[in-house]
Amino acid sequence: MRKICVVITARASYSRIKTVLQAIQAHPQLDLQIVVAGSALISKFGNILPQLEAENLPVSAIISNLLDTESSTASAKTTGLAIIELATFFANHRPDVVVTVADRFETIATAIAAINMNIPLAHIQGGEVTGNIDDRIRNSISQLADLHFTATRQARTRLMGMGLPAQKVYCTGCPSIDLVRQHRHIDFDPYKMYGGIGARPDLNKPYLVVLQHPVTTEIIHSKWQIVCTLRALATLGMPVVWFWPNADPGTDGTAQGIRAFREANPGLPFHYFKHMESDHFIQLLKNSACLVGNSSVGIRECSALGVPAVNIGSRQRGRERGSNVVDCIPDADAIVAAVKQQLAHGHYPPVAIYGDGDAGVRIADRLATVPFILKKHLLPS
Amino acid sequence: MRKICVVITARASYSRIKTVLQAIQAHPQLDLQIVVAGSALISKFGNILPQLEAENLPVSAIISNLLDTESSTASAKTTGLAIIELATFFANHRPDVVVTVADRFETIATAIAAINMNIPLAHIQGGEVTGNIDDRIRNSISQLADLHFTATRQARTRLMGMGLPAQKVYCTGCPSIDLVRQHRHIDFDPYKMYGGIGARPDLNKPYLVVLQHPVTTEIIHSKWQIVCTLRALATLGMPVVWFWPNADPGTDGTAQGIRAFREANPGLPFHYFKHMESDHFIQLLKNSACLVGNSSVGIRECSALGVPAVNIGSRQRGRERGSNVVDCIPDADAIVAAVKQQLAHGHYPPVAIYGDGDAGVRIADRLATVPFILKKHLLPS
Amino acid sequence: MRKICVVITARASYSRIKTVLQAIQAHPQLDLQIVVAGSALISKFGNILPQLEAENLPVSAIISNLLDTESSTASAKTTGLAIIELATFFANHRPDVVVTVADRFETIATAIAAINMNIPLAHIQGGEVTGNIDDRIRNSISQLADLHFTATRQARTRLMGMGLPAQKVYCTGCPSIDLVRQHRHIDFDPYKMYGGIGARPDLNKPYLVVLQHPVTTEIIHSKWQIVCTLRALATLGMPVVWFWPNADPGTDGTAQGIRAFREANPGLPFHYFKHMESDHFIQLLKNSACLVGNSSVGIRECSALGVPAVNIGSRQRGRERGSNVVDCIPDADAIVAAVKQQLAHGHYPPVAIYGDGDAGVRIADRLATVPFILKKHLLPS
Amino acid sequence: MRKICVVITARASYSRIKTVLQAIQAHPQLDLQIVVAGSALISKFGNILPQLEAENLPVSAIISNLLDTESSTASAKTTGLAIIELATFFANHRPDVVVTVADRFETIATAIAAINMNIPLAHIQGGEVTGNIDDRIRNSISQLADLHFTATRQARTRLMGMGLPAQKVYCTGCPSIDLVRQHRHIDFDPYKMYGGIGARPDLNKPYLVVLQHPVTTEIIHSKWQIVCTLRALATLGMPVVWFWPNADPGTDGTAQGIRAFREANPGLPFHYFKHMESDHFIQLLKNSACLVGNSSVGIRECSALGVPAVNIGSRQRGRERGSNVVDCIPDADAIVAAVKQQLAHGHYPPVAIYGDGDAGVRIADRLATVPFILKKHLLPS
Repeated sequence: MRKICVVITARASYSRIKTVLQAIQAHPQLDLQIVVAGSALISKFGNILPQLEAENLPVSAIISNLLDTESSTASAKTTGLAIIELATFFANHRPDVVVTVADRFETIATAIAAINMNIPLAHIQGGEVTGNIDDRIRNSISQLADLHFTATRQARTRLMGMGLPAQKVYCTGCPSIDLVRQHRHIDFDPYKMYGGIGARPDLNKPYLVVLQHPVTTEIIHSKWQIVCTLRALATLGMPVVWFWPNADPGTDGTAQGIRAFREANPGLPFHYFKHMESDHFIQLLKNSACLVGNSSVGIRECSALGVPAVNIGSRQRGRERGSNVVDCIPDADAIVAAVKQQLAHGHYPPVAIYGDGDAGVRIADRLATVPFILKKHLLPS
Repeated sequence: MRKICVVITARASYSRIKTVLQAIQAHPQLDLQIVVAGSALISKFGNILPQLEAENLPVSAIISNLLDTESSTASAKTTGLAIIELATFFANHRPDVVVTVADRFETIATAIAAINMNIPLAHIQGGEVTGNIDDRIRNSISQLADLHFTATRQARTRLMGMGLPAQKVYCTGCPSIDLVRQHRHIDFDPYKMYGGIGARPDLNKPYLVVLQHPVTTEIIHSKWQIVCTLRALATLGMPVVWFWPNADPGTDGTAQGIRAFREANPGLPFHYFKHMESDHFIQLLKNSACLVGNSSVGIRECSALGVPAVNIGSRQRGRERGSNVVDCIPDADAIVAAVKQQLAHGHYPPVAIYGDGDAGVRIADRLATVPFILKKHLLPS
Repeated sequence: MRKICVVITARASYSRIKTVLQAIQAHPQLDLQIVVAGSALISKFGNILPQLEAENLPVSAIISNLLDTESSTASAKTTGLAIIELATFFANHRPDVVVTVADRFETIATAIAAINMNIPLAHIQGGEVTGNIDDRIRNSISQLADLHFTATRQARTRLMGMGLPAQKVYCTGCPSIDLVRQHRHIDFDPYKMYGGIGARPDLNKPYLVVLQHPVTTEIIHSKWQIVCTLRALATLGMPVVWFWPNADPGTDGTAQGIRAFREANPGLPFHYFKHMESDHFIQLLKNSACLVGNSSVGIRECSALGVPAVNIGSRQRGRERGSNVVDCIPDADAIVAAVKQQLAHGHYPPVAIYGDGDAGVRIADRLATVPFILKKHLLPS
Repeated sequence: MRKICVVITARASYSRIKTVLQAIQAHPQLDLQIVVAGSALISKFGNILPQLEAENLPVSAIISNLLDTESSTASAKTTGLAIIELATFFANHRPDVVVTVADRFETIATAIAAINMNIPLAHIQGGEVTGNIDDRIRNSISQLADLHFTATRQARTRLMGMGLPAQKVYCTGCPSIDLVRQHRHIDFDPYKMYGGIGARPDLNKPYLVVLQHPVTTEIIHSKWQIVCTLRALATLGMPVVWFWPNADPGTDGTAQGIRAFREANPGLPFHYFKHMESDHFIQLLKNSACLVGNSSVGIRECSALGVPAVNIGSRQRGRERGSNVVDCIPDADAIVAAVKQQLAHGHYPPVAIYGDGDAGVRIADRLATVPFILKKHLLPS
């Protein structure tokens, strides 16, 4: 039995890795250790513990390490704390492999703790290009990892170009796409189940979904950028289901922008959710007229769903995309034009750039069978 | 005035970067901030504070973060603490650029703290290949850095191959080579100045220098490997100047091996130093008959000095080398044979693979003039 | 010149120690080092940096250490981080005395860092009794401190009863009372200057001030308790100036209670401030009809001002008090009755239980002149 | 079942609490959680893990937190790290009571983590007086604790005098005395079992035992003080069994003193042990002619054994003692005279000041039955 430790530090990462967790748990030769840390433990960013419990995914340990997000040092210190405490977890629970996902600033903590303790590291979603600071962190983790599971063929090629050995880089597809295939209609009442504030538009009529995060290198502009989007959607006047941003630095600017605009524009048909279980989110997404914002969801999940996406600004720059995406700059007029173009077009045929729906099972199989290079060299006899 | 912060976490890194510090301090447009941390503060690993004071290099802050090296979590926690405390230093002293050097496990802490706080990061000695876990850490830091100063042309080419932009990668030569050019004869009494224990061989007659570190991925073999070298040199019976290993995990195994061998073999002509000011070390090295061990010194400094080197085991695997290096496995007989071969050959003509002696000045000039890419995108007008 | 380091970890502590800072800065034999940490750096809890700048009190260092307050481990980890980083500050800035104030959970961090580094520790506001967990922390700090400045004679007697040496315990009065003497009328527009939300009652007519914090040992009841007070004040219908609670665990419950009540009761004549410069706060307090809540302000400042106070619940249990205080349980009816009783009585004559207004100067004088017991014993000759 | 978490941070603390651990483990209503941290994990200070395994005492978690002891900030940072990581342990394992022992600098970490998380804290060995910085830490912990188990009646009285409630302070005797009663003769070969270095005196003839720690407030004098003792014992010329000091700051001075003296005086009949299992240590102690040094063992265990003790210097100042103790200043002549006086007297009759041998069972019983004051107040109905 190999012990596989998966560290989850944000709600978004959980959604990306859920089918991997399920496949590891179901695998006869794997023993799953889940560590939950960072914003994944905090209600306002979407505490995932209730959801893990609902899915019968047992948590081995929780590690609170999120500093108050306002400080410029918060993300560095959150990362430092995570390394310290993950080292203790690894020393006590001795996983055979540690799995980390994607490119969040605190993801590198998992990698560093594992590397320093000579534990093989598997990385999911390496080799992609998004054109911002996340690229550096993602590539940096790829350089530390022993085993790579990429979402796309192009990502695999890119990793090998960076010098990583071909026999350690597998294109498995992205586990987040696994979740997309099962869903069809909205089978729950989002307002009743998740509360939130604002108007409660009828979701049987055309509506937009918004998911816009602050851009890490543009902290001071967070407020301004969110206001552009708010103005554009106010101009359009369509019903909007708006999801609160996650815990990056700059969140507060985005949050302030939304709050101020709401107070100044009370009658708009916008509803705001803090977070939503990923299955439910995919339902809402699949049935929407268009996704607006700068989340990778517009490029990844929406390509598999065929949902039109308006991608604003630089955050997803360089990411491989299907024909369902229209890019625009963070400007109210540009956003209005792009959304109108997408509404005129309607849904697209789904494509499989980011996976065919079996990534979780493929990754678990590899974790069970890949021979790890012996790090401890043999002595001469 | 650009504020340039250089973080030094080990005596070895100080020697490598000393001429850069001097060149930054002398530069009219640069303001130098030195942070000393980790083993560079601990006497038994070679506290560098007295040396910095002697060189009139003022220290902006000291950060004690070294955990007791015996624990398997020590290096991870040392890294985590460094990130936390460097973030506070950066928040209070607001450097314009942070400089980090080489590939030690705690070097990545400097990189992560800087990146998380949107401070441009310069990395010295990226792009090399040594064939062990250090490669991962070195490449990982390269992926995080904004600006790269390589020791060799081949290293520059390798970084560009990894996707880093050519205009941000400069081949400057290695600053540690800058120190090599000035030295000729031994102008100090090493026994009087640095104490140490053991025999006190006459350094006017042929002697060997030993510098052997534990190999990170072979912690349990540290003791065994050092004993091979000890046995080989006991067989040879030549005078030896032996330098104590630095603070990697596994140090204790190496140290135990040396202590036990010494007690069991009391009459050998070996002298043991804990550390030595780098200028003095270079003098001893230049006048030695051969360097034995697994330090990069055998490959880098010795190539510039023309000193023969016997390089034992896997630690420097893959590093570019001149004809002055003979490689051998960690086996007493093999070491004896390799040393005899080098003694028979004698000194080599110096070569400039790792630099021509002006790296410090070149790096300072670049730090003063390179335009950093604006991380904060402009707003649309 | 003695270097005196004062560590401030919360807005409330700053107000309590402001006149001490001014007196140290003005003292010819003292050199002031201010460290700002914890919630005192975070906007939502009242960032004190702008105020320190306005008062020309230079900050030697900022240390961000506040973990997200929702986690049950947040206060412990905030304390642990503070110890780590304060140790580094003390090692780099070598204060002769460290000053800590009162009884907040993170205050003990300052004490432990100083004690571990053999730096004399002065504690302000020891020896009081408030009847909750704060008593333990306060007494624990008193046991660590070398020098004690108490607010009341009774507090001094209590410390000596705990075994502390009489010659190290001075009754100086509380520095927060120093601020009270200068103020008369409201000379600023609070709504313009501090924003806030809600109604904007005319402050020339009678109004109440509310300051209610969560009780540390009653986290789960925070929401319930704040609702009692909200209901009582809604019943009374008088204008209310309400101050947001500070960063104790449980804050979120209190905040949620206030937000929910506000949404459900939109027309009430309540105005909510997040924080206010202490001089301004004292003006508002002095001119109010009555203070309501569980803050020590009702007992300390209000006794010196003669302002009636309704003290709710257990938080101030055991604290010495003047006749201006009416206690009541956290029950809406009880609160209504107590406020009515105070309104019927009107203002009280000021009393000097907690100080005569010269505490800051007295403390600075002692810090300059007290001979610290030599901790390093002399060698036998 | 109450879950009782005992945190052990040093070998010395383990010996003091071993019978408590056994009694908790044997108790039908108690569930034992052992956390091992700090120097108790490090070989050179006496790693206790093998001993816990041998005693069938399962370890719930190990937490490496010991910084390299040379730094002046090491003890503060070790304490800070302990708080952070213990908070995570408590959050994950939810003990009903946390037990901490005595007065080491890092002991307070356990107390602070527990207090901040509203977990009842039991403290063993409060209320004693030793006349140094440890008094402050011990009293500080007593002020934080909910439940107190004292070694002596006088200690209980002292705690109540400090304001602690009588019904929460139990005089149980010291658990370290429990170990003393069972032992008679030396039934093992200490040289074979524990190695060590130096001469190997015949332990059937009269010998001395030495246990001398650096004094926290006298770091710079550590080396000098140990040399006094070394000289005195060299003068006496009797066989000596010498135990290496533990991990306080200043250890290095003591260690250097011993090493230098050994090299300069090679023929002395002294044997040096790094550590010894406590049962074995008690055997050696019981059969010795006299204990020399500044350890509490001379006052506590030796009083119960009737072994003469020469107590040097200030470290145990103020500690209750029996007639078996002769005090002297750290001066070679004074030590010689005191040892001669004790040798002339011979063994003393045992006395029960520090316990009658049933402390462990008594403490476990109390932990199982004491009603903890509800920290969470009830709501008004």
